[in-house]
This record gives sequence, structure tokens and C-alpha cells, in this order.
Amino acid sequence: MTTGREFTIFGAGLAGPLMAVFLARAGHRVRLIERRADPRRAGAERGRSINLALSTRGIDALRRVGLADGVLAGAIPMPGRMIHAKDGSLSFQRYSKDGTQAINSVSRSGLNCMMLDAAEREPGVEIVFGRRCVSVDFDRRRAVLVGGAGEREEVAFQHAIGADGAFSGVRASMQLRDRFDYQQSYLSHGYKELTIPAGEGGAFRMEKHALHIWPRGSYMMIALPNPDGSFTCTLFWPFEGPYSFAALKKAEDVLWFFRVEFPDAVPLIPDLVRDFQENPTASLVTVRCSPWHVGDGAVLIGDAAHAIVPFYGQGMNASFEDCVRLSEALARHPASVERAFEEFGRLRTPDTDAIARLAQDNFIEMRDKAARASFRAGKHAQHALERWLPGLYLSLYEMVSFTTIPYAQALRRAQRQRAVVLTALIAAALLLATMLLSLL
Amino acid sequence: MTTGREFTIFGAGLAGPLMAVFLARAGHRVRLIERRADPRRAGAERGRSINLALSTRGIDALRRVGLADGVLAGAIPMPGRMIHAKDGSLSFQRYSKDGTQAINSVSRSGLNCMMLDAAEREPGVEIVFGRRCVSVDFDRRRAVLVGGAGEREEVAFQHAIGADGAFSGVRASMQLRDRFDYQQSYLSHGYKELTIPAGEGGAFRMEKHALHIWPRGSYMMIALPNPDGSFTCTLFWPFEGPYSFAALKKAEDVLWFFRVEFPDAVPLIPDLVRDFQENPTASLVTVRCSPWHVGDGAVLIGDAAHAIVPFYGQGMNASFEDCVRLSEALARHPASVERAFEEFGRLRTPDTDAIARLAQDNFIEMRDKAARASFRAGKHAQHALERWLPGLYLSLYEMVSFTTIPYAQALRRAQRQRAVVLTALIAAALLLATMLLSLL
Repeated sequence: MTTGREFTIFGAGLAGPLMAVFLARAGHRVRLIERRADPRRAGAERGRSINLALSTRGIDALRRVGLADGVLAGAIPMPGRMIHAKDGSLSFQRYSKDGTQAINSVSRSGLNCMMLDAAEREPGVEIVFGRRCVSVDFDRRRAVLVGGAGEREEVAFQHAIGADGAFSGVRASMQLRDRFDYQQSYLSHGYKELTIPAGEGGAFRMEKHALHIWPRGSYMMIALPNPDGSFTCTLFWPFEGPYSFAALKKAEDVLWFFRVEFPDAVPLIPDLVRDFQENPTASLVTVRCSPWHVGDGAVLIGDAAHAIVPFYGQGMNASFEDCVRLSEALARHPASVERAFEEFGRLRTPDTDAIARLAQDNFIEMRDKAARASFRAGKHAQHALERWLPGLYLSLYEMVSFTTIPYAQALRRAQRQRAVVLTALIAAALLLATMLLSLL
Repeated sequence: MTTGREFTIFGAGLAGPLMAVFLARAGHRVRLIERRADPRRAGAERGRSINLALSTRGIDALRRVGLADGVLAGAIPMPGRMIHAKDGSLSFQRYSKDGTQAINSVSRSGLNCMMLDAAEREPGVEIVFGRRCVSVDFDRRRAVLVGGAGEREEVAFQHAIGADGAFSGVRASMQLRDRFDYQQSYLSHGYKELTIPAGEGGAFRMEKHALHIWPRGSYMMIALPNPDGSFTCTLFWPFEGPYSFAALKKAEDVLWFFRVEFPDAVPLIPDLVRDFQENPTASLVTVRCSPWHVGDGAVLIGDAAHAIVPFYGQGMNASFEDCVRLSEALARHPASVERAFEEFGRLRTPDTDAIARLAQDNFIEMRDKAARASFRAGKHAQHALERWLPGLYLSLYEMVSFTTIPYAQALRRAQRQRAVVLTALIAAALLLATMLLSLL
């Protein structure tokens, strides 16, 4: 039967509550178990506001359960990139041919609260906070939870969903089982967040409707706008080496580095040295694993199944899309949760493998190529092709950000398009050469 | 100072005790902590005898501490492969040009006992059995051990060495730290062991001095001789699919399959059906990780650092070679264990990555190519080249099995040799063609 099953979701970040809504709408009972305290009550201790880029895939998932408009109401559209050169000059690169398509800056903590509210509104959804899942016994269908004071308890479940992030406890228990393929790989770069506060009266001190990038070859800084007029900057920088988090620590060195590399940003970040010295340096991990499920006992979604680096702005969007795909698989196999779990993982893995690779590659595009004239010319040419061949040619960035074409399919189509364009260019060159020769 | 440090080695299998001997000889104190009971006292419950192929790298490591002759005394040299065709016909393929080089079948449990005896003979080495390392706190330099009755205790250490195998507890704790790259990947094939008992009076019922292979394309069986006249057979077979461990379980199906595929082996395995149904089906994992060390607190060696599949017969040999390399690194940096650990891992990883790849590739060579006439012709050509170009040409198999040329270097040299031979063949063909044309 389709309805009336019990699902226990570990992790009430972004994918967890959305999955709960999908399951509740399909008539299932859901228990959401979250490591942290309720962020809606924690108030001041919420920590730094980090923003995320919500794009078409995430919006599509939210729209299916009526949550898109509410989320977009608090979002800031970013229809393109603002490139900051070393001399302070700016250039704006549209993401789409006519500038009508945008990715949207949203606050992670704000979105988390909205998703929790949405899950809680559904009948049959219960949320438990302050319980961390440390291990799962899939055969006995029991999970060990640890509370804030270190107290342990065991909970039974019918079907578990691990939505507990890149360092998933559910996945850690899967890794101890036989024949579980697993890979975690870190970039040699880390990141640190810095804040550009709002101007007087909440004014934005840089272009509000843009994702700002300071591309510097082997590293970069980016900034996304927040609704209060501030920007959250993120410096992506090597951990080790001559210019690195390990090498530059003293106040004067940090200031010198920023003045040379990001001169236009320095006057906008009043707490630059303190932020730099006190904010944590975080690492960037890519996680791949297979299979994502254990029988009909458990399945992974979101970062727990496929953590990716942030350079394509697709982490949250891919996780929200997982919720759609898993819901569809459960609907296709009402009689067998195991078949649904297995099929979800088998069909979805090629897509998450593709976006994992694209996200790693896009770091090089953002930090290095984006600053080059040849890259700008290429983007102009892509937009021109889109105008000349509407519906036939679409850049990879747009397929990823502004459509729901499966990631792996988008990647294949981009490769085909590149081959066709290259062939056409060679043919045109040959034709031109032939014409010139015939004139001699 | 060089001497007088304290090392705690987790795992007293093969690499652990050998490392203990190396360290003791260098003047350090060593505590070896082993999960299982003392295998020298466990006697009958020792379980199935599994044999391993000891070759030059392993022998070289043992020789450095005077253990090679004792181990080789109980070993059976295998100077080549005996290929068993489906029609029961046999063909012998030498490993070296003149048949003088051999890999050696040794009993894992026998070798384990000899290594424990050797470690125990060294002053300053203490062995503790029946304590499993479940977690390590590298910052506090403490490890949590669990005894056979579930009792937990914490032990302090100065420098830890994780020699605790493919499912290392030391490595599991490293994986929880930031920026630890890790990968475990399983083959879709598993393996199952079967026994060909000795004939009357301990007679060998097949050629004693050979590694027997029944190559069957997508799977294979192999057999290694034991000193008591028996052979241990290992069937490498897919877990899933039409002909697989999942598909064939019933007695008549198993017998039918063996009669069709391995007809000459069936009369030699009296307990075939019982062995097949009762012996476990084991999986085949490759593990890669980086870095192998945490400051001067801990380092991984052997399978814990780089578990590989068995198809090149190099798992134990690579682990023994690790002990040599780590000892050398410690001797090069007497004042800094951290530099020694770091350098050991940095220099050794390219070699263990190379043998991991070669071991995976060799499965295809053994199960498929070894049966083909073209493969046999290629081996003959290689041996001919070795005779014509002594010291200049050496096959990859021989560099891996019969030299201590670092694995990565052996792989590069084999690639260069292949390019040179190919170029020479093309040049010869062109020359021949020119000569033929000149005759016309």
C-alpha cells in the first residue's frame, strides 16, 4: 500500500524537512530527528548568517509543495556575476542571454526555519531536536542517539532516511557494512567568511543584484547580498603554501594581502583583520558513495549521499531535487520501499556524480577563467548562439542553473554542443579558405 | 635522539610484528596490541589455512632482520603458472626467462606465528593479545581498546603505528579528522575457498611447483600448494548475475557448474558442495587514503594504509616493504618522528597507488588473457627480449615480483619499454616493406 508507512529522517537541515513535507503529503507518518537545538528558538546564538544560491531545481522542488513563493519573497535575485579586477574596475556578466534568468541569494538559517515551519504544519510530522544519530543497526532497525548532555538512547524505526549532511552518522554506519563503496576527498583550498556590513539605512554598498567575484587565478573571493543590506564574503584560499591560511596570520600581513589583491573590498570590510583571525577556516569536501540504501531499512539523500563543493551553487538545489526524485520513486513502487530506494539511488547517482565534477571544475572557471577576456568573449558567443538557435543551443551553466534537465544529461548535451560548434567553426574556416583561394 | 622512543603498534598480523622487529633493532621500545587471541596458543580453532605468495620484496624485508631463511624453509616455490583449460589440458607458463625465479606459497597462519616468535625474541617488545583498538584520540595520544568480554580500557602512547589491516580502527579515527582523503572500493567479484586434500602419504595431486589457474574469461579459480600436500583453491566469481554466488546455491547447480567449468578439479575436491555452501563468501576491497600520519602521533602501514586486491600477489610483500621504508625514514630523521612519518607517506604513496592499480588490472590478465594464445605468445616474446637484452628489458611482472624496484618506477619503466618495443616493431616492419619493394 502507498500510504501509512513510518519514516524516520535523521537531519532537519534543508533536505530533511522538505523530504518530510513530501512524505506527509503522500500520507506517511514522519519523525524528523535533528542534532542541533531548534534554530527558531536559539535566536541570538544562531551564528553567522550564511547565504546560498537558490536556482531552478530548488525552486521547482519547493513549488511542488507550495513553498517556492514564500522562500523567493525573501530572496535577492542575482542575474549575473560582477567581476572585480585588481585595479577596482568592474564588469558584469549576465548568466542568461537576456538577463532575465537569475540565481537567488537566500539565508541558510532563514530557509532552515521556513522549512521547519513547513514540516511542522503537516499532520503526521513530528520533530525532535537535540539528538545526534551516532550509529544505526540496519538489521535490527535501531539507531543510537546522543543528547546534549551525552545521554544515549535507542530508537526503533521502520524506514530511515539519512539527511544528516556531509559527515552523516547514518552513512558512517553504512560504511562499516560489506561492499559499501565510499570516497571523501578534500580540496587543498579552504574558505573563510568575512562581512561587508550594510551602509546607512540598510543601503547596499555594492551592486545588490549580482554575485560578486574577485578572481585571482589560483584563489578568489566571492560575495553574496543579504536582505539587510550586508554582503557575506567568502575567501577561497590554499591551506598551505607561500600565500595561504598557514602563511598569513599576522594583522599587517592580512591587511597587506587584502590591499594588494582586493583593494576595492578593504574599505567595505571594517572588521577585516578580526574576522580573518577569529572566523574559522573551513575545508571543502566531495563525498561519493554507493549504494545509497540498505534494503528497505535506510536511504541517504542530500549531502549525506553526495556532498559537493559550492562552486556551482548547486548543493542545496541538488538536495532538494533528491527529495523530488525519492518521492517519485516511492510513488512508482507503492508496494516495495526497497525497490524505490534502490531505483532512486541507481537513477540519481549519475546525476550527482556529474554535478560533483562540474562543481570542482567550476572553481577553476570562477577563480581564473572568469577574469580573462577570452572567457568573456566565450560567454558572449554562447549567448549569441542561444539567440540564433533558440531551444537548440543552451549553455551548460544555464542548463544546470535554469532548467531541471538531469545533470548528467546536461553535461552530455553540453559536450555534444561543443563538438557541433567546433565542427561548424572548422567547416566555416575551410569554406572561407576555399573562397579565398578561388579569388586568387 | 635515534633510540629509546616508545612505539605502540596496533595489529600483530604480518606487518605489525615485522615492524616491531625493525624498531627493536633500532633501539626503540615496542608494544604490539592485537585484536585476536595468540594464534600460537589457539591451536585447532585457527580456522582454514590460507596461503600467500611471498616474493622478492617480502623476502628482502625479512632478510634485513635475518628471518628470510626460516620462512623460506617452509615455503613451496612456484616458478610459473599452470593454466587449466576447460578440456582439462594443462600448459605451464614460466614467470622468468629461465624458470629460475619463483614466487613462494607460504601459510598465512604459519607465517603469523613465526613473525610473533621473532618479535617476542627482541628485547623491548611486548605483545598484548585480545584487545581491539576501536578509537584513537590523536591529540591526547590515547587509544580505546575493547577486550573479548566487551571491557573497555584506555591506553596512552607516544607514537602509534596502525598495522591493523584493511578495516583499521586507527584509520577510522583518522577519517573523522578534517582533510583526510579516503576511498574504499569493492570489486563486483567475491571469493570462496575450497580444499583439494593431499593424496595418499601426503602426495600432491597436481603439479606441486606451480600456481594453478583456471581462467574462464569473466571469472577464475586458482590454487596454491600447501606443505602437507593439499591445495587451497580460491574461486573468484561475481556476487550477482546469471552465474554468480547469488544465483548458484543448490547442490546440483554447484556441481553442474563445476563439472562444466572446472571438470579436472571436481574429482580432486571431495567436499566441493559442502565447502561451497558452508565457507564464507568474502569481498575484495581496495583502500586508498592520505595523509597516512597525524603529526608524530600516528602513522599507517600495510593494508591499513593501502589495502589492495590479491591478483598480483603483492599485498603482504608491499606491507613488508612498508616496514623497510618506514624504518629508513625514521633513521633519516632521528630528531623528528613527524618528518619521518610525513616523508614515509609522501614517498611511499605513489608506489602503493601503482601496485593497487596493477593488482586490479592483473585480475583481467589472470582470468581472461592468460588463457589466450596471444598472451602466451606475448610472454614468450618478453622472455626472448630478456635473453637478447639482458639487464635492459625486464617484464613488468618480473620487476614487481623479482626485484625491489619501486612499484611506480617499475610501472613507468614497463610503459617506456612497451613504447620502445612498439617503435622497433614499426621500424622493422617499414624496413621489411622497403626491402620487399626494392626487390620488385
